[in-house]
Amino acid sequence: MREHYHEQLQEISANLIEMVKLTESAMERATRALLNSDLSLAEAVISDDARLDLLAQQIEDQCVSIVALQQPVASELRNLVGALRMSATIERMGDLAAHIAKQARLRYPNASFPTELRSTFSMMGALATSGVQKLASVLETRDLTFAADIAASDEDMNKMHRELFTTVLSPSWTHGVEAAIDVTLLSRYYERFADHSVAIARRIAYIVTGDLPSRSQLAENA
Amino acid sequence: MREHYHEQLQEISANLIEMVKLTESAMERATRALLNSDLSLAEAVISDDARLDLLAQQIEDQCVSIVALQQPVASELRNLVGALRMSATIERMGDLAAHIAKQARLRYPNASFPTELRSTFSMMGALATSGVQKLASVLETRDLTFAADIAASDEDMNKMHRELFTTVLSPSWTHGVEAAIDVTLLSRYYERFADHSVAIARRIAYIVTGDLPSRSQLAENA
Repeated sequence: MREHYHEQLQEISANLIEMVKLTESAMERATRALLNSDLSLAEAVISDDARLDLLAQQIEDQCVSIVALQQPVASELRNLVGALRMSATIERMGDLAAHIAKQARLRYPNASFPTELRSTFSMMGALATSGVQKLASVLETRDLTFAADIAASDEDMNKMHRELFTTVLSPSWTHGVEAAIDVTLLSRYYERFADHSVAIARRIAYIVTGDLPSRSQLAENA
Repeated sequence: MREHYHEQLQEISANLIEMVKLTESAMERATRALLNSDLSLAEAVISDDARLDLLAQQIEDQCVSIVALQQPVASELRNLVGALRMSATIERMGDLAAHIAKQARLRYPNASFPTELRSTFSMMGALATSGVQKLASVLETRDLTFAADIAASDEDMNKMHRELFTTVLSPSWTHGVEAAIDVTLLSRYYERFADHSVAIARRIAYIVTGDLPSRSQLAENA
């Protein structure tokens, strides 16, 4: 029974890591769809999102079944509750990647942003993707230096998000209201996505150390 | 021991209902702060948000402790997992109310929206507030006709959200880019808030009936 139990715990952990990897791929492809106005790639990201919802539901069912049939000790329970919370957050990150893909689809065959912002969105996409990639590493290794990197790169993301606001509000913005709104919403999706990565990294730190670090405490070890 | 157990379950339920009521108050006050450019009210909403974060953490600790010390049966576990998920969502709704208050603070002493949109935001605030009020009723009574009302009024919210997009993008919009972005973000906060109410209503329906209804299935009984 105990052996089966450890198998079940490992299944939950594997499902969580699969969710993170699917989210990483969703973000990478959503950004590519956005940068290249690639409609079929955008459609793929949108339809693949259902898999994340399914995995989150599976993790919930697995957690309920393991608690009902086994008697997990306190530290294992902390892990299970952590898995539940993290899966809900990763599901939302998948939604944000899908929002980016939907924005690309909405303006297709046109771009959703003026050409001069291409490198900005390319960088935001790279930051978001690498953050969630590191999240998989923290989950697999429990090495919190990855968590610190996630918090540090979130600060870069916030800076870019603020700069984009300044750009669309400056008198030299000549692309009109629709483009300003598109850029603002896209920027917000990237910023929220990275923010969720930090929230998950903090939660892993809590599981590992027993203390929930603030964002700046987490970044200090980068 | 069983008696103490039922007390613990009731505490969790009471904390959840307190969270919903605090969120209702936060949304009502945030909307008032927005409509009247009331800085001190906005500040109060922002600082009160910490209480919601604390309650969500408390619910998590209570769930872990109850599962560790008692052996909840499957239906009770489903309730506990539901409480965990719902508290995380309500925490996010509180964040959205705080975002609205922050927007009011950002433009103080000016308004965040042109005068002709006053009634729109007033209605969005009323819809969001009444949705979360009904959520407290579903939680307290498990009467799913309230849940149906929540889903139905979310459709009104979505319609207003789409209409605001049309307004800020129309050639007759004369208030510039900054106001267009303010209005778009505010509208998105209200729409997300109402959307979370529906997600929670669906989850309660799942706990009560064992089936997770789609949004349109939930609305059908309104």
